[in-house]
Order: sequence, then structure tokens, then C-alpha cells
Amino acid sequence: MLRLDTRFLPGFSEELKAHAPLLLEAREALLAKRGQKGAMLGWMDLPEDTETLREIRRFREQNPWVEDFVLLGIGGSALGPKALEAAFADSGVRFHYVDHVEPEPIRKLLQSLNPHKTLVNAVSKSGATAETLAGLLLFLDWLKAHLGEAWRRHLVVTTDPKGGALRALAGREGLRAFAIPEEVGGRFSVLSPVGLLPLAFAGADLDALLMGARKANEQALAPLEESLPLKTALLHHLHRHLPIAVFMVYSERLRYLPAWFVQLHDESLGKRDQEGRRVGTTALPALGPQDQHAQVQLFREGPLDKLLTLVIPESPVEDLPLPPVGELPEAGYLFGKTLFRLLKAEAEATYQALAEAGQRVYALYLSEVSPYTIGWLLQHLMWQTAFLGELWGVNAFDQPGVELGKRLTRAFLEGEG
Amino acid sequence: MLRLDTRFLPGFSEELKAHAPLLLEAREALLAKRGQKGAMLGWMDLPEDTETLREIRRFREQNPWVEDFVLLGIGGSALGPKALEAAFADSGVRFHYVDHVEPEPIRKLLQSLNPHKTLVNAVSKSGATAETLAGLLLFLDWLKAHLGEAWRRHLVVTTDPKGGALRALAGREGLRAFAIPEEVGGRFSVLSPVGLLPLAFAGADLDALLMGARKANEQALAPLEESLPLKTALLHHLHRHLPIAVFMVYSERLRYLPAWFVQLHDESLGKRDQEGRRVGTTALPALGPQDQHAQVQLFREGPLDKLLTLVIPESPVEDLPLPPVGELPEAGYLFGKTLFRLLKAEAEATYQALAEAGQRVYALYLSEVSPYTIGWLLQHLMWQTAFLGELWGVNAFDQPGVELGKRLTRAFLEGEG
Repeated sequence: MLRLDTRFLPGFSEELKAHAPLLLEAREALLAKRGQKGAMLGWMDLPEDTETLREIRRFREQNPWVEDFVLLGIGGSALGPKALEAAFADSGVRFHYVDHVEPEPIRKLLQSLNPHKTLVNAVSKSGATAETLAGLLLFLDWLKAHLGEAWRRHLVVTTDPKGGALRALAGREGLRAFAIPEEVGGRFSVLSPVGLLPLAFAGADLDALLMGARKANEQALAPLEESLPLKTALLHHLHRHLPIAVFMVYSERLRYLPAWFVQLHDESLGKRDQEGRRVGTTALPALGPQDQHAQVQLFREGPLDKLLTLVIPESPVEDLPLPPVGELPEAGYLFGKTLFRLLKAEAEATYQALAEAGQRVYALYLSEVSPYTIGWLLQHLMWQTAFLGELWGVNAFDQPGVELGKRLTRAFLEGEG
Repeated sequence: MLRLDTRFLPGFSEELKAHAPLLLEAREALLAKRGQKGAMLGWMDLPEDTETLREIRRFREQNPWVEDFVLLGIGGSALGPKALEAAFADSGVRFHYVDHVEPEPIRKLLQSLNPHKTLVNAVSKSGATAETLAGLLLFLDWLKAHLGEAWRRHLVVTTDPKGGALRALAGREGLRAFAIPEEVGGRFSVLSPVGLLPLAFAGADLDALLMGARKANEQALAPLEESLPLKTALLHHLHRHLPIAVFMVYSERLRYLPAWFVQLHDESLGKRDQEGRRVGTTALPALGPQDQHAQVQLFREGPLDKLLTLVIPESPVEDLPLPPVGELPEAGYLFGKTLFRLLKAEAEATYQALAEAGQRVYALYLSEVSPYTIGWLLQHLMWQTAFLGELWGVNAFDQPGVELGKRLTRAFLEGEG
């Protein structure tokens, strides 16, 4: 269950009524592009794709020997799987993310792994990502050196259905390859094989994850009053003059979720609009309670330049009572309370304290942290982002601003020797 | 070696001359408080404290049995040790940070640890941090249940020299206790036992760390032209109208450094000034190259509302050449290059692309990522922050804005049943 709370934004229901035509028009404009080639709306259909899920499950069952899973991928190819694996891993398989190009940690990783028990998953939609290809050269070389011809069983690629270097490699060498559907971009790909394959090895409940995502789809298309993503999109639209959108999550298991949201929000919406104006707000990742001891001082007394989203679980999966320990009477006020109750009290206290400080803040309550609620939340946030693209007049599905960096990298790489 | 580069901010040397009186006055005002009770400037002296370092080393040598190190602490008690341990751990001791209060991960951790091989370090300046006390109840109970009277050897506290619950516990039970000097606050405590104790168990080179920090002290007090912290403080001062201060680090080993900086900057400077005005800029954590695929689109095409600091290493400690792998001719442009060269090319390309987009950006170059350069960088950033406190008219060493949250937490905790 995902629930929006706007108790500290009292005029919101009037705003919702006033903006109904705008919101419904934005939704209509978005849905009108569904199925159009190049519209990149394939993420809407991923929660229904049970055939891919079956294939992935079969592959996981065929490879029970895997003890270490190395994901070579960066940005949208790593942030989603990492967030979900950290939350729901249950199989004992160890995960390693090579989403960087620093030599020392990669050297250390290669020394620590047993190649016979390692599965390498190279993930890139285009197949041309420099960081991923660099990592792949190192791991391919390492697998071949240790396993000879058997290396092919230890490398699986997730990439475009037809084009690019990874697809070509898989074709030439007979590697297992999973497809990222043509109409699904990197930051919208967590429910494609990009996320599902690692999560199958992590032992996460993928049926529940997709079921939750289907719930978000339902709500996205529902009448305005029940359409959560239209409502949260409006919240961001009404506060677009505030430069910073804080995304603060009260769950240690979800510690990598803010980074996934940052990419989704920033790379989708930080754009020139049709008139060439610079639009977008800057997502700021935050965790509760850690950031009560880091960022909340600024949120309370610093500039009122933020819209804050608090993601708060309403109940634990399994709680821990705090034992009365005679040696520590100073902590007596905690005896007999539970850990989750402390967590919840801190979240509610922060929510209220931020509102009292004059910041704009709302909450998304999760009934609990589970694959079902997080599947729902992820797909919800994708809809929110897509709606905001319509409202702000930008294409939420491209990233023209990163091209210059790629060209310059190549130039620096060639030029320096 | 730490080096400031302002090539894309051409007017900076004139600005430095024009602001010389202001900067020198700020430094004088800060240094005039040195030694005053309650000024909280003890962090300036930590790099010279070799006696504490000796004690910590002795303690580490007396406890060679430790295989798992559990740090109970949050905010300034965890962010610094975590950043440095992730960068420089070399001993094989496994580190676990209980800097949260979510029941499920703590339950899992307790089940996975061998109490006979585990050292628990409870860290809180005040000794009153609710999250840390909650964790301590659980771990104390667990140690006693498994070890009986021997539990006392497995718990060490780092806290105020005299007051608070942790100091009292240590006194009553005869536990080993390390002192956070009275004049050192949490977010300035990384070079006190807060950081040094875990890092001794991690096997990091603490002499080099403190030597680097002494270099920053030297520069802080040097004539303006050589005073790196005064210069970077001025950069932030000149851009204080921009709401966002991006701190982007091109090093996977330093992946937790941005979170440490966020606390230092936000909690020190996000304040009401003497006239009651809300001041402070919001630090935004970023990593290279990961965020080229996440935030750089927004940095390039979104609003020009940021000052960006790029932290870039100039050479690797140990590089990795990219092997020419016949199976992957599409990556031919990388054959024979090294991984670090790719990293450096990406950093330089991003630096230039951000400047060309019209963002305000400067670089801090590290000769390499080592305890020496990072000790230097950390202490440099503490000086920068302290100088900014003077320039912005706020007390960089208190955190009044978090008190309401603490009171409300207690109320919610008591009230709900």
C-alpha cells in the first residue's frame, strides 16, 4: 500500500481541483504517444511481461553454482538493481557493482573472486558505454585466463534486442543475452531484465515486485482523485520555483533508493524546454534518521528553497524489542519500546519539525518495506516523472546534455598519448 | 598534494585581491577564539595529538582477535570513519555501521556475527544519542547473552571526557573508553578517536593521515596567496547566491566522502545569522563517473544555480592496463589504454563540459588518493567551513535546529502507548 499525505499543505485539494484540466491533458498527451516508435514508453508495459520473468527464472535455475554476481554497468544499468538487491537479497549470493573505472578496487575485486563460482553480467542498452566496455575487457580477459573455453558460461549480457557491441559479442560467441526492450531507456529499465536478472539471483520476490508495479499503472490511469502519480506530479509542478527536491527515505534497507530517484528525476527533467529555457529541479538524496544528524539543521534553519518528499514505512516486517539492560539505566526511556517504534517516532517528529520550520513537505507512506510496496513506489515515481515531462514541456526520455562529455572523453583519451 | 584549479573562473585572482581584507579579518576573528572555552575549535589541534594515536595503537595491538568491528554511532560519529575505512581498509577486519534504527538489518547482522570475534564501539559525544543508545541496548544484551562476564572486553566507548551515559557506563563497568576532546564537535571529530580507533583496526596509515592534516593547518595559517582554505572559502562566499554546492568526487574508494562533506557543510552553515536571516547553501553529493550518467544532464542543461567542486586524483596508486581482447573489437579504442587514464579523461571532459554549459565550477586536484592527501583534504574542508562561518555570520559549531526534532521524537515515543 502506498499512501499520499499532504496534511501540512492545506490548500492542496483546492489546487488539485483547479489544475484538473491541466493534469488530465498532460496524461492524455502522454498516453497518446503510447505505442509510437521512439516515444520510449515501453516501461509502462514491463510489469505485465511475465514471459521474460519466466525465462529469467529458468536461467537462474540452470545456474545454481553462482556464488558471486558481478554487475558491469553504470547509471540506469546499476542504480535500480543495486537499490532493490540491497533491500531484498535473501539467497546468500554476493553482489559486486563495477559501476566505475577506478583501478584499485577492481584489482582487489578480481583478486578476491573465485572465477569458477562467478557470473558476470554486462549491462548496457547501447552496448557502447565506455565504463562498461572497459570493465568487460578486464573481466573477459580474467575469465578466459582462468576458465579457458568455459568462460562463455560465466558471462551473460543484458542489452538492446538487436544492435550494439554487447549484442554482437553474444551473437559471435553464443553467449546468453537478455533484451532491454527497444522502447525502454536506461533509467526506466529497473523492471526489465536489467533489474530482474540480478534480483532473480538475489532471491527477491519478483512476482510481488511486478504486482506492485501493476498497481501503480492502475492508479496512473485512474480518475484524478485516485491517481497518485498525477497528484505527486502536481505537488512538484506547484513547487517548481523551489530549486531543490529532497527525497528522504526512512529505511536502511532502501539506502540506495534515493540515488536511483536522483537519476530518474534529474536526467529526465533537467532539460531545455521548447523555448530553450533551462528547466528542472535538483533532487537531493537523504536518509532517515541519518540525515537528521546531517542535513536537517539546514532544512530547518537554512533557506526555504526546498520541496521535501518523506518516504515512511508504517509497519515493520519483523520488529526488535529493546531489552531493559540494567547496566544502562540512562536508556530507561527506551526499555520495552521497539526499534521500529523509535524509527517511526523519529520520522513523524522530523515531518512535523520541517513543516513548522516553514519548508514545503509531504509524505509517501508505505504499509511496509516489501517487494510489493517498492515495486509500486518505483513505477509510481516513473509515472510522476513522465507526467512532469509533459507539464514542463521537456522530453523526459532523452539525455542530450551528456553527449558533449562523451565526445570530450574520447578526445582526451586519444589526445594524451 | 592538494591543488586548487580555477581555470574556468577567470576573474578569481582579482576577486582574491579585492577580498583580502575581508578574508584576513575572518581568519583573525576565528583564530582569536582559539583556546576559548566553548568555541569548539579543538579540531585544529587534533593532527598534533600523537599521544592519543599511541594509545589507540596500543589498544589495537592488545586486541588482535577482532574479526568484526561494529560501530554504533550516527552523523558525525559514523560518516568520517566510514568514508576513510572504505578508502583505506587493509587489515581484513570487517566493518559494520549501525547508524540507523531499522530492525530487519540489525536482526540480520546479529545473526551473522560471531560474538567471540566481535568488537563493538559505541560512539557519541553527548552519550545521549537515542539511535546509539538503542543500538547499544541490543548489542549489550547480545554480548552478555553469549559471553557472560567476558562481554566487557568486547565493548569500547568513544565519548565525552567526563559526562554522559557512555562515560558513566564505562566508569561503572570498567570498560575501555576513549575521549572526544571537550572542544571537538561531532562533525569535526574524524581525526579524534572517533575516526582513529576504527581506522587502527582497519589498518589504515594513521601517521600519514595526520601528517596530511598538519599540511592543511599550515596552509590555513599561511599568507593569503598560499592559503588554500581561505581561497576555497572565498569561492563559496562569492557564489552564496547560488542555492546548491555540488561536491563531486572522482574516486570509487572515496564514495562515502561526499556524505561526510554534506554534514560538515550543511549542519555548520545552514543557520540563522545574527539578524535572523536564513543562510547557507545546500551541498549536493555526487560521484564520478557514476553521476555523468545521472546528474550531469541536469547540471548541463538545467538551471545555472550551482557552484560545483570537482575532486580529481591526478595519478593512481596502482593502475590497470586494458587488455586487447580479440572477442571484443568494438572496444578497440580502449586497448592498451589504462583504466586510470579513462577515469582522468572522463573527469577532465566533465570539468570542461560543465564550464562550457555556463555552470560555475572549480577543481581540487589530489596528487593521488592516499591517507596523506585525504587527511589534508578533510582538514582543509574543516578550515573552509570554519572560515565560511565567519564570513556568513553564523556559529559553525552548534546545531540548534535539530533540538525540536529530538523533543518531538521523545514525545511521539512516550505518547503512542
